[in-house]
Amino acid sequence: MKNTPTLRDVGEHGVIKEIVAAAPSSLNGDDAAVLLPMAPNSRTVATTDMLVEGHHFRLDWSSPFQVGMKAITQNYADIEAMGARPLGALMALGAPLDTPVSVVREIAEGIAKRTGDYNTELVGGDVTQAEKITVSVTAIGALGGDRQPLALSSARAGQKLVAHGRIGWSGAGWALLERFGRELPDPAVQPLVDFHCAPEIDPGRGVIARAAGATAMTDNSDGLMHDLMSIAKRSGVHINVFADAIAPDELLVRAGELLEHDPWDWVLAGGEDHTLLGTTMKDPPSGFRVIGEVTRRNGADYATVDGKPTPYSTGWESFPQGL
Amino acid sequence: MKNTPTLRDVGEHGVIKEIVAAAPSSLNGDDAAVLLPMAPNSRTVATTDMLVEGHHFRLDWSSPFQVGMKAITQNYADIEAMGARPLGALMALGAPLDTPVSVVREIAEGIAKRTGDYNTELVGGDVTQAEKITVSVTAIGALGGDRQPLALSSARAGQKLVAHGRIGWSGAGWALLERFGRELPDPAVQPLVDFHCAPEIDPGRGVIARAAGATAMTDNSDGLMHDLMSIAKRSGVHINVFADAIAPDELLVRAGELLEHDPWDWVLAGGEDHTLLGTTMKDPPSGFRVIGEVTRRNGADYATVDGKPTPYSTGWESFPQGL
Repeated sequence: MKNTPTLRDVGEHGVIKEIVAAAPSSLNGDDAAVLLPMAPNSRTVATTDMLVEGHHFRLDWSSPFQVGMKAITQNYADIEAMGARPLGALMALGAPLDTPVSVVREIAEGIAKRTGDYNTELVGGDVTQAEKITVSVTAIGALGGDRQPLALSSARAGQKLVAHGRIGWSGAGWALLERFGRELPDPAVQPLVDFHCAPEIDPGRGVIARAAGATAMTDNSDGLMHDLMSIAKRSGVHINVFADAIAPDELLVRAGELLEHDPWDWVLAGGEDHTLLGTTMKDPPSGFRVIGEVTRRNGADYATVDGKPTPYSTGWESFPQGL
Repeated sequence: MKNTPTLRDVGEHGVIKEIVAAAPSSLNGDDAAVLLPMAPNSRTVATTDMLVEGHHFRLDWSSPFQVGMKAITQNYADIEAMGARPLGALMALGAPLDTPVSVVREIAEGIAKRTGDYNTELVGGDVTQAEKITVSVTAIGALGGDRQPLALSSARAGQKLVAHGRIGWSGAGWALLERFGRELPDPAVQPLVDFHCAPEIDPGRGVIARAAGATAMTDNSDGLMHDLMSIAKRSGVHINVFADAIAPDELLVRAGELLEHDPWDWVLAGGEDHTLLGTTMKDPPSGFRVIGEVTRRNGADYATVDGKPTPYSTGWESFPQGL
C-alpha cells in the first residue's frame, strides 16, 4: 500500500481522467452534456441525492464500487417512481486531497456499472476538494407519451397497493454491519449486507407500471410505512398493507435471531430498499406483487397493517431533531 | 444572536420547509421534478457544480444570498455556453447541524433570485448532514431547433472571437478580499468584490448567440487564456486576443494600485467571471463584443494576445498538483 497515488498527486485533471476512463461517455466533456433525444415531446424528469462519507456510507463497510452503484440506484429509483426512464446521470464529487485515486476510480466504476444496467452513462460532473468524500448525483429521465407521471398524489380508493423489490433487507444489512462489521457470525445473511451497501431493483419497472395503468408511485427510501404515509397524505386516502404479503423472509428472521431484534422493524421502517411502491386499479404490472389496498380515509391513521396502526409514523431523517 | 435556530433544532423537514418557502416551485415535492415541456423535440442539456465552504466561498466574505446566486450563475453559464436555455435547477445541500437555519434560507433566497432572473425555479433537491456547507447545484436546460450546440470543438479559422460579460473582475475581487477582507481601503472597488461574490451575466445570451450564428462557446470559469485554450485545442485552431479589447478597465487599474499587482493577471487568468466567449463568422450577436480572432494553428501556442504567448497556460485547479 506504499506510494498509493492520491488526489494531491494527480491533481484535478488527473482525477477527471480517471473518472472518464472508468465511466466513459461521448456526451461528457463540454460545458454541459447534451442528452440524446427521446421520443417526440417527452418531458424531462430530474432528481438529486447527496451521499456523504460517515453519514450515508462507511468505506470500512461498503466498497467504493458499491457506493457508486448505490448513488445511481437511489437516484434512478426516484426517476422510475415517476414512471420515467433514466437517461443519464451527473456526479459532483468532493473528496479530501489524501483520498487514494483508486477510491475515486472505483466509485466511478460502480457508477458505470449501474448506469450501464439501464443503458445509460455518466454524462457529466465536477470534482472538488471537500472534508469528506461527498457523492452528489443528479439523475435525468424522460417521461414519454401523454399519461400523467406517477405522482404521490394520484392514489385512489379502491386501488391495489403493489410493490417491486425487496422490503427490509437494507435496514437489516445496516443493523448487521453496525453490530458485527464485515465479520458476520453466519454467512447466510451476507446478502442482506450486500443489499444494504448496493441496493438493486430491476431497471425499467417504473415505465412498465405507468404503461400498465399504475397512477401513484414512490420508492421505499425512508421506511415502508413512512413512504406509504406520504402517498396517503398527498392523495387524501388510507393505505392498508397485508401483513402476510410483507412478512419477514427467512433471511430477515435469521438476522433477527442473530441480533435479537424484531425483523418487522426493518420491514416497516428500515428504508433505503428503494422498493417501488405503486397503486393501480388494474392487475399488478409485470414484476410487481400485491401487498395491500387503498381505501377511503377513515379515522386518524394514514397507513395501517391488517387494519392496525403501527408505531412507525416517521422514517429516517438526515438531521434527527434534537440530536 | 441568542437562540438562533439551527438545523439541529428544526430537523430535516424544517429545513426543507424553509428552502421551499424561500424558493417555491410547483414542480418540486415528488420523487423527481417533471420539467415543463419545451418546444417540440428540444434536447435536454445538464451540468453540475459543487461549492464547498472554505474552498469556493467564505461566509465572512460572501453573504449566503450571494453564495446561492453564484451557484446558479455558474451552472446556468454552462447551460448558456451550449447555446441552450436554462429550464430549472436542483440543489443538494450538505451542512453541519449547528448551521443557522437563516443561512440555509438565505442561500435558497439567492437561488430563487437568480433562477427567477431566468424565469426558472429551484425544482428539486436534497438536504443532508455534512462537515462544511456544501452547495451542489445541477442545472437543466433545453436546446431547441436543429442547430448544433455551441461546442468547444466548433471554432473555425477566420471567425471572430466575441465576448459577453466582465473579464477580470472576479479575480480582482478575490485578491481584494484576500488582502483586505470586507474593509476595503477605497469604496470605489466594491463592485469588484460584489462581482466576485455573485458574478452575473445577462440571461439568454447563449441562446441569442446560437441563433445569430455562433458555433463555439464556453464561459470564462478557469481563466480567460485557459478557457480559450480549451476551445483552441478541441477545435484544432489558434485564438488571438486583441490586447486593446480586454485591457484592464478603470476599476481593475485601481485595484492593481491598491494591491501593487499587475491587473492583467486578473484579466488573463483570474477566472470565475463566467464571461461567455464565443466564435462566429458573422457580426457579433447582440450583447457581444469582438475581442479577438480565430486563425489556423501555426506553431506551439494555442492562444496569444496580440500575437504573443502569455504565461497563463493553466488556470484554476480544484486540487493543485503537488500542494
